[in-house]
Amino acid sequence: MTFWNFFFTNKNTKIIHKKNKNSEKQQIFIENLIKNDKNINIYYSTNKNINLNDLEKLCDAVGWVKRPLKKVKIAIENSFLIISIFYYNENKKNLIGFARATSDESFNATIWDVVIDPQFQGKGLGKALMKETIKELRYHDISTITLFADPEVIKFYKRIGFITDPDGVKGMFWYPI
Amino acid sequence: MTFWNFFFTNKNTKIIHKKNKNSEKQQIFIENLIKNDKNINIYYSTNKNINLNDLEKLCDAVGWVKRPLKKVKIAIENSFLIISIFYYNENKKNLIGFARATSDESFNATIWDVVIDPQFQGKGLGKALMKETIKELRYHDISTITLFADPEVIKFYKRIGFITDPDGVKGMFWYPI
Repeated sequence: MTFWNFFFTNKNTKIIHKKNKNSEKQQIFIENLIKNDKNINIYYSTNKNINLNDLEKLCDAVGWVKRPLKKVKIAIENSFLIISIFYYNENKKNLIGFARATSDESFNATIWDVVIDPQFQGKGLGKALMKETIKELRYHDISTITLFADPEVIKFYKRIGFITDPDGVKGMFWYPI
Repeated sequence: MTFWNFFFTNKNTKIIHKKNKNSEKQQIFIENLIKNDKNINIYYSTNKNINLNDLEKLCDAVGWVKRPLKKVKIAIENSFLIISIFYYNENKKNLIGFARATSDESFNATIWDVVIDPQFQGKGLGKALMKETIKELRYHDISTITLFADPEVIKFYKRIGFITDPDGVKGMFWYPI
């Protein structure tokens, strides 16, 4: 069964959601992302088979610390959900956004590694990516969706509906010394 | 290969760690937990095959909201790590502690559902459970270990080495409305 779902992230961005319930691969076409004469083809996929070098380049572009590709591969394989955003230009597929979530597939999920290519930031893509991530997790009836936000993106997540320290609950970290 | 590891959580608790590297089931025997004339047999296991009714009773004992067993089963199956603590009394096995963690099995893990039977609290078991959880995750080279702590247990986790809001990073939650 295929169904379509239309929603708007902002006045410049129209997202057309094409979902095949019986297929692992789900695509969402975003049209008119940049308001100009031509349409730009952007879509996103939950397929885990992602080019790790492309992901590394994307993470590099936002200044993240390099991580061993072997470990990134394992992390992706063992994530419950992967969402990648691609931009098609002259038939070339470019990775411009990414997010993933670990989960017990029942109660809780934690979102990690949310990244949008700096050239495509400020266009509502981050918001669209998070909305889609939440939607996918809610589709699996996961009710507690968590993440750890750097200070500069706390406001962004608040606008999407995330709250900090509900009832005094604190995110805590343990690192090896 | 079997090896033994001895450590102390407090002066009343001696933990003997028996680990079989080639077996999924790992046991840690805790002796002399309660300082009296007889030894009390307490051990813990990472076996996922846990009696869900026993777990429900344990969670009930600390006043947690009842959860559908079917969802608990899925959550356990999809957790990366489960640690259960059992107490043997007259050849009967009693579940007295539990913790689990979701993980990408590479970079990050999040610990959920940490619980110790109220009758066995204040004896260093919670600390032993967390130390063992960290040890298991570190064994898999996971370096970012996270959790969400209720206000009344923040101090407990701080004593183990967890920190709140490192560099202003905030734990955030999204709940369905």
